[in-house]
Amino acid sequence: MSVTAAREEDLLAIIRDAIGPSLLRRVLVGIGDDAAVWQPSRSHRSAITTDAFVDGVHFLRAAMAPHEIGMHAAAAALSDLAAMGARPLLVTVALGFPPDLRPEELRGLYEGMAAVCTRCGAGIAGGDLVRAPALTLAVTAVGEVRSSNVKRRTGAKIGDVLAVTGPLGAARAGLHLLHDPQALTGALAEEAIAAFRRPLPRWREGMWLAASVHVHAMMDLSDGLSTDLHRLAEASGRGIMVESIPVAPSAQAMALRRGEDPEGYALAGGDDYELLVAVAPRAFPYLASRFRARFGRPLLPVGRVDAESGVRRRTDSGIVPLASTGWDHLR
Amino acid sequence: MSVTAAREEDLLAIIRDAIGPSLLRRVLVGIGDDAAVWQPSRSHRSAITTDAFVDGVHFLRAAMAPHEIGMHAAAAALSDLAAMGARPLLVTVALGFPPDLRPEELRGLYEGMAAVCTRCGAGIAGGDLVRAPALTLAVTAVGEVRSSNVKRRTGAKIGDVLAVTGPLGAARAGLHLLHDPQALTGALAEEAIAAFRRPLPRWREGMWLAASVHVHAMMDLSDGLSTDLHRLAEASGRGIMVESIPVAPSAQAMALRRGEDPEGYALAGGDDYELLVAVAPRAFPYLASRFRARFGRPLLPVGRVDAESGVRRRTDSGIVPLASTGWDHLR
Repeated sequence: MSVTAAREEDLLAIIRDAIGPSLLRRVLVGIGDDAAVWQPSRSHRSAITTDAFVDGVHFLRAAMAPHEIGMHAAAAALSDLAAMGARPLLVTVALGFPPDLRPEELRGLYEGMAAVCTRCGAGIAGGDLVRAPALTLAVTAVGEVRSSNVKRRTGAKIGDVLAVTGPLGAARAGLHLLHDPQALTGALAEEAIAAFRRPLPRWREGMWLAASVHVHAMMDLSDGLSTDLHRLAEASGRGIMVESIPVAPSAQAMALRRGEDPEGYALAGGDDYELLVAVAPRAFPYLASRFRARFGRPLLPVGRVDAESGVRRRTDSGIVPLASTGWDHLR
Repeated sequence: MSVTAAREEDLLAIIRDAIGPSLLRRVLVGIGDDAAVWQPSRSHRSAITTDAFVDGVHFLRAAMAPHEIGMHAAAAALSDLAAMGARPLLVTVALGFPPDLRPEELRGLYEGMAAVCTRCGAGIAGGDLVRAPALTLAVTAVGEVRSSNVKRRTGAKIGDVLAVTGPLGAARAGLHLLHDPQALTGALAEEAIAAFRRPLPRWREGMWLAASVHVHAMMDLSDGLSTDLHRLAEASGRGIMVESIPVAPSAQAMALRRGEDPEGYALAGGDDYELLVAVAPRAFPYLASRFRARFGRPLLPVGRVDAESGVRRRTDSGIVPLASTGWDHLR
């Protein structure tokens, strides 16, 4: 049975059930009315971001479980909030469904979104359900951030250390594993699958980093480090010298199997959802050690902000321009 | 040239230009960062709603100007805020574009959305731009409302007068005029075209009505009065007796031309974006006269909330059940 054979009320019942008991903090009106209503914090600013995911463009419905698609869509939106230093509060979802979507797929999509939201302390507060030629999830996430903690892309200063919250490329390895399931085994396969199918936004790390005055700029990595470094350079009007690229073990293994350079592979990998920060150089060692103590993982340096133009990479054969090789939504 | 031949920065430049100088109140970070950030009101609650519009389902790209499509999508979302009694503040847009979308169409879409937002005192604060098989606009609108003014669908009381903020069916007549351009002329054609192509949400009326303690429930009419009456009855757990249906002159003329009953035609007409309110009966005459004085239009009674079950209509031949004949998003 497809969802087009169901009544709207039945579909809303499926969605309510998939979302489970509300974890919404301070939400006065949730799903089912014209709009959701919440009590904003008196001491914080509100933050909002919208991300859309389309079958055949951002994911393959045929190759992923519905709850994985839902997790991915919610994680991407919540990762944008993390990059602003905001604590997630609520999410709304515009879901466009093709005529052949089954009710259990609908349930899985919302279960996946709800799972990620719950992990981040947020809840699904509303949305819209419409017919569409391809499965489409447009997720809007709302969060809260202290005014003094808002971290923009424009804030990077000359001399800042650029660092990321984790090694890169594992989600790309997970994508390639779809087409080549024997490529990785054991812990490497686990790492790649988890990164690609069950991403979790770094919202705790984002809030923690945002609270430091030594963090001058922050953004999330969604389209590949090389592409996102260009965005940071452009937004801040600075240059960037890339000095090292932390490659996830699964990305390393997958790149070698494909005959590709592991660093190039990781630079082009989208969906990492790690955070990229620009940190005052004198503060970096102490911040990194506190980060490790707090989160059990290192803050990994990737390069420096400088007064030159564009993004460059230091290699054994000298300094070369770094091309933007990441994911392009428009192609 | 299609937008897929353009760089993302060029498209963002088109969007910024189409949106024009920011009218955003209290927005600290707008388009171009990971999330938009604003200062919420200390005395109000925040409200959020998401509406999606898909080419071939909710509109026809081939038959409407891009700015009309944009106006329509923004109006639908802002109308939901109006129905909550909220003042619009900002909007985010997830735009899915087919490969053949032209840059001037992109500009028109955002100009249309910005035009409606500006009329309502809101601004476009962010969003996402992705490839999709059909033109898709998912609009999220955020507004603010005093806690005591929040009007839910659940609040209708037995004996309440149900009334609408304007006559119905004109947008449907405008839709049918696409297929039969000679059907209406002069002022009738103007009315139908304006309702269908250039809808404006009743946000001032919504805020004004929400401020009255005698208004017990409010919702907007987006899918046809007959369908929306069923929703109000279900949400409030009451019955509804329909006594009169205010038909817009253009809907009257179009229905007769099509050999249809004008009231049935208006009952099934979506996209009206009028507000439906349940008002304490003793307060209704005074509220309606103040409404007329304030907005220059009558508040039109359509029926009564009662203790019976379901939605019924009083006709010359007795009381009959009123079927839900409006727009169904799922079919």
